[in-house]
Amino acid sequence: MAELKQALQAEAKAVDHMLDLLLEIPDGAEARLVEAMRYSVLGGGKRIRPFLVMMTSRLFGVDDQSALRVAAALEMVHCYSLIHDDLPAMDDDDLRRGRATCHIEYDDATAILAGDALLTCAFEVLADEETHQDPNVRLKLISELAKASGMNGMVGGQMIDLMAETRELDLPEITRLQRLKTGALIVFACKAGAILGKTGELKNHALRNYGHDLGLAFQIADDLLDVEASVEETGKKVGKDAERGKATFVSLLGLERAHEQANMLSEQACKHLDVFDKGTDLLRQMTHYVVNRRS
Amino acid sequence: MAELKQALQAEAKAVDHMLDLLLEIPDGAEARLVEAMRYSVLGGGKRIRPFLVMMTSRLFGVDDQSALRVAAALEMVHCYSLIHDDLPAMDDDDLRRGRATCHIEYDDATAILAGDALLTCAFEVLADEETHQDPNVRLKLISELAKASGMNGMVGGQMIDLMAETRELDLPEITRLQRLKTGALIVFACKAGAILGKTGELKNHALRNYGHDLGLAFQIADDLLDVEASVEETGKKVGKDAERGKATFVSLLGLERAHEQANMLSEQACKHLDVFDKGTDLLRQMTHYVVNRRS
Repeated sequence: MAELKQALQAEAKAVDHMLDLLLEIPDGAEARLVEAMRYSVLGGGKRIRPFLVMMTSRLFGVDDQSALRVAAALEMVHCYSLIHDDLPAMDDDDLRRGRATCHIEYDDATAILAGDALLTCAFEVLADEETHQDPNVRLKLISELAKASGMNGMVGGQMIDLMAETRELDLPEITRLQRLKTGALIVFACKAGAILGKTGELKNHALRNYGHDLGLAFQIADDLLDVEASVEETGKKVGKDAERGKATFVSLLGLERAHEQANMLSEQACKHLDVFDKGTDLLRQMTHYVVNRRS
Repeated sequence: MAELKQALQAEAKAVDHMLDLLLEIPDGAEARLVEAMRYSVLGGGKRIRPFLVMMTSRLFGVDDQSALRVAAALEMVHCYSLIHDDLPAMDDDDLRRGRATCHIEYDDATAILAGDALLTCAFEVLADEETHQDPNVRLKLISELAKASGMNGMVGGQMIDLMAETRELDLPEITRLQRLKTGALIVFACKAGAILGKTGELKNHALRNYGHDLGLAFQIADDLLDVEASVEETGKKVGKDAERGKATFVSLLGLERAHEQANMLSEQACKHLDVFDKGTDLLRQMTHYVVNRRS
């Protein structure tokens, strides 16, 4: 696990550097907007999604600069969703990654706009020819990221999550919610390397399936952390789900079965990587990391 | 003007039909999200931006289906900005296009997500090969729309507008604010036809300049309407700027000079169209319409 943590840190640093370059603070009064964007997107985090982009890209020998731009764009989308999710009108959270959330540090209006601008910037970055010389690769990235993060992906999942506050969901419904809300972006992260590397169906599907199982394991572990971990460990509020009476994998499966399920999915995710001869060590370690992390 | 109004209505109908096709209501609990998106995007409006896309596309014989998809994507971005702008944390408006705003009809959280999903969907639509067979045209549209609507465009302008509540802006600052906040999307609308038609620099610049002057004239007229028109005419709250003590073209120039300036810009916009031999009648009428409208 030490090797993975070191690699996570190294890639996080490289992605932060790319984000720093992409989000230059302008001269005008709108500087505050870009400061808020930078506050959120450069405010730490495990950077699991960017890491998955980098690792899957290396499987195909993709140029690091290409992969870093895609990783940065994806992190912008992830961070925009956190900013909007934390707003008073949504989850009303004031702590994220151990710091004040964007609307607490700035204000609600700035946070809404910072989220909007991050989402927009992600597509601008992907459309730029510096991301990949092949126009069809850039279009595929844009199309897949839009699908993963829009009404039939992440935002759709967030809507189901909102509806879940008034009606308790069952296991298939929770699974679908999470597949959309957190799974879709994780699957995109895993497929990004395959898209950049223009690989065939077999490896593309293997990475999609890896991402699917990893994403679900990640979410079950997240639900477990909400019950078992402390604010100090996670850097965000815990016990939220129980407080709101919302169904989770833990409330539906119980602690023991939730742990079992997460471990099973973690092993299953690993198996999908068998189609690759080499280069999957860190991706395999990742499957254990997501279920055993304490933050 | 009757000819223009008829043409505006005809194009609005065609764009509405395209938006209806693109925003299919799904089966799951996220149906509410797409209903809110449809409520806002199919809720009337003058459809000036889509109209400009259609008219400039016709100058180059662009296929109507291509133009309609771009027009629909642009209207999604415009409507997302209205939804977020109307939120309690922003302008706190409950009336838009003569109807309850999205967060009043639904709720704040749903409105935030509906805006997010519309923005995302716009890029998904543009990336689709049905929009144009040439990948580089699609990428150019995505790149230009992202720039026009992001931190260096519309959202940047909205941020400056927020800052203007605490510090009174002067004329160059107001002009820059409006160039970003409303001008950038109008310029995009005017350039869309040139991008789709793959025309040269001369005509591209002519349409950009037309859009620039038209956009500024539009905004001055908007400031005048806020002073001179009624709620019944505009379908939205009026007298807002004065109430908030915000500087506008009218407060800085006075009524008479604001009217003069709008008319001057309208004529100037027309002149840019002289590089075209024909097909610009409705675009010329549009320059008069934007300064003489009552809504």
